Amino acid sequence: MARTASLSGFPEWLPEERLVELHVLDTLRRVFELHGFSSIETRAVETVGQLLRKGEIDKEVYGLSRLQDDEGDAAASHKADPHALALHFDLTVPFARYVVENAGYLAFPFRRYQIQKVWRGERPQEGRAREFTQADIDIVGDGELPFRYDVEIALVIAEALSALPIPAFLLRINNRKLAEGFYNGIGLTDTAGVLRSIDKLEKIGPAKVAELLKSELGATDEQAQSALKLASIRTEDTSFVAQVRALGVSNELLEEGLAELEQVIAAAVQRAPGKVVADLSIARGLDYYTGTVVETVLVGHEQLGSICSGGRYDALASKGNRKFPGVGLSIGVTRLVSRILSQDLAKASRSVPTAVLVALNSDDSWSAAQDVAAELRSRGIATEVAAKAEKFGKQIKFADRRGIPFVWFTEDDGKHQVKDIRSGEQVDADPATWTPAAEDLHVRVFRA
Amino acid sequence: MARTASLSGFPEWLPEERLVELHVLDTLRRVFELHGFSSIETRAVETVGQLLRKGEIDKEVYGLSRLQDDEGDAAASHKADPHALALHFDLTVPFARYVVENAGYLAFPFRRYQIQKVWRGERPQEGRAREFTQADIDIVGDGELPFRYDVEIALVIAEALSALPIPAFLLRINNRKLAEGFYNGIGLTDTAGVLRSIDKLEKIGPAKVAELLKSELGATDEQAQSALKLASIRTEDTSFVAQVRALGVSNELLEEGLAELEQVIAAAVQRAPGKVVADLSIARGLDYYTGTVVETVLVGHEQLGSICSGGRYDALASKGNRKFPGVGLSIGVTRLVSRILSQDLAKASRSVPTAVLVALNSDDSWSAAQDVAAELRSRGIATEVAAKAEKFGKQIKFADRRGIPFVWFTEDDGKHQVKDIRSGEQVDADPATWTPAAEDLHVRVFRA
Repeated sequence: MARTASLSGFPEWLPEERLVELHVLDTLRRVFELHGFSSIETRAVETVGQLLRKGEIDKEVYGLSRLQDDEGDAAASHKADPHALALHFDLTVPFARYVVENAGYLAFPFRRYQIQKVWRGERPQEGRAREFTQADIDIVGDGELPFRYDVEIALVIAEALSALPIPAFLLRINNRKLAEGFYNGIGLTDTAGVLRSIDKLEKIGPAKVAELLKSELGATDEQAQSALKLASIRTEDTSFVAQVRALGVSNELLEEGLAELEQVIAAAVQRAPGKVVADLSIARGLDYYTGTVVETVLVGHEQLGSICSGGRYDALASKGNRKFPGVGLSIGVTRLVSRILSQDLAKASRSVPTAVLVALNSDDSWSAAQDVAAELRSRGIATEVAAKAEKFGKQIKFADRRGIPFVWFTEDDGKHQVKDIRSGEQVDADPATWTPAAEDLHVRVFRA
Repeated sequence: MARTASLSGFPEWLPEERLVELHVLDTLRRVFELHGFSSIETRAVETVGQLLRKGEIDKEVYGLSRLQDDEGDAAASHKADPHALALHFDLTVPFARYVVENAGYLAFPFRRYQIQKVWRGERPQEGRAREFTQADIDIVGDGELPFRYDVEIALVIAEALSALPIPAFLLRINNRKLAEGFYNGIGLTDTAGVLRSIDKLEKIGPAKVAELLKSELGATDEQAQSALKLASIRTEDTSFVAQVRALGVSNELLEEGLAELEQVIAAAVQRAPGKVVADLSIARGLDYYTGTVVETVLVGHEQLGSICSGGRYDALASKGNRKFPGVGLSIGVTRLVSRILSQDLAKASRSVPTAVLVALNSDDSWSAAQDVAAELRSRGIATEVAAKAEKFGKQIKFADRRGIPFVWFTEDDGKHQVKDIRSGEQVDADPATWTPAAEDLHVRVFRA
């Protein structure tokens, strides 16, 4: 499993690895649908103008151009041409565009999940690919969206992640209103600038962040220390509220943020204990978040980066005066699956979907063997038929090599037997009734 | 459902349309896995060199370039640079590359299905998009691949298509050896050229094809007429063999092709009656096919073009002297789904996965409502909780607007009731045991 991708940053899985990824995707889909999220997909491309609407991310985008475009060098003008096409780099921006375009056809609050590949032209490294799969859930309202959905979406994600074969995880949740209100309360008005500096806390440490705040934002030493004190607060329950209040800053937006975050944490303590913390160092770089912000670490794999991020965005999508506020979270599926595979955290019970290989007595028995196979398949048992009437030993070896647990034999007198090639046990069997043990019927993926 | 894509050639579905697509994809996956095909995905990009290895298709390819690439205008040199990246235009060429790269990790014959988006920069029209989903199955051998797999793969596809909510279809099957042997037998040696001309038969008719054969390939009138006679043969059984023999051409390759096609058709007559014909006009434009070739029409929708194509390729993949012959078929999922939706051939039983909305008595009852929802979900019933304690009438309207069939009420004394908002019937219910009727448990997709 230590293969290197032939194109750096573009991972591809072997069939038995793909089974692990499929299990992850199927599990997420099941949980999302149980919570009433509808599936949608958006096209892989957006116009450059759409993607760069929020700025700051253009370095990572792959532009498209037809190789045989006769109208001159279309690609060279990408940067200038907002109508040029480029691959999407996340699923939130395309979703916002989709909501605006289809608002007349959607029932709000609109709940959707979206599992697709996205592309970023970044330098590849562990946990960061150029092509990767994200699994997003979002709830978007028409005009307004009750805050309760912020609570709900965190709980849904905690449930979804809990269903995956991964180590313990921790949702670290903060609130932009809380942070912005606090900064305003201490007299720092470039809140976006403060957030960008705070976002670097884990990378460069508090001393350097303090320097940044002073040198780049003109903060006093006291202001910088206050901002750092706020960012150092991290509690597993709602006691962060008292800790923030103890810092003695008074501001209306701060109070709003405290009340919101308190709601999320209070519900999480009750419904997802041990899986959520209030962490006031969380900033999230992207500037479209307006309230709740979330990052998620895998415990013991913190250096992997966040495996699930997102938050509340009240102004990402609008159509004239009509606003579509939303809240959503995005799971980094490829990041998770890469880690599961590279550290053997989970594996599939076998390498192929096939449960049974029907062996051939003679080359003429292929059609009869297909009849047996069809009968097994009609009862949900994945079955292949051998292509050549080799010696039984060779046909059994073929099954073994492919990871197929059972081989089916039909005698010339029409009697059937099935052999479990792992135990060697061979028993009489009827194609109309025989069923493998439940754990052999389908491929299962389990924690290693 | 008559919406236009906001970007021509890049269709996007509404949630209830996506349910139809999901049903198609789930059905294909189920049939493929029952037949022992493993899932894989390949990256969306290939190097230009890899994609153009077989030539002739460069007009359709989208090249990639990072918008902020500092190393000058990388995109402009795409045509010249075989290492430049481009989006794949089918799944066969990437699969061949994958097999060669991972040969040491795969068990041959390797059976895989692959369901992914592909991109072509063609002019969009009905049935032809720039971004579309293909569902491919292929079987690839190491060194050799028994012909029986050609038979099997046609039967698997017939079974898969039969499981979809689409009109009757017809697999039209020919064999390149048969055609090439015949052309050689009548003295036409540029068989690729003849195939290209024959491929235009449906578009331009036999008279013009005859002219092409004479003007471009130097065929005599007699040769042209012979080639056209061959192409006019179409039988639902193996009687095509006698009809070809009656044309009096003798050639070894022709005999081999006749025997192969006879095997496929004989098996299909027995196992997929009415779904397969021998059609000797089928040529397939791509030049990597070496034996069986297949196209598929939807009966009554012939102008849509082929909805499933492919064939045998003995030389697409190789690693030094090691050859990996294969046979595969590719279903045009987007083409099919577009047609299903535009002609209302099938629809979903409801527009959201949700079966139950748990209503709120008061804003304080949200947590208790979540308990009810969790209990229903634990038994596989997709459930949402209302976000606001509006009047029950409003909450029922909310469910109705979202297409949710049941609304759950919990009285203050802890008694539960559930209302089918379609019939108005309301009954006592226990969250630990109540289950909706089987046809309401999950979204179903049925032929309209």
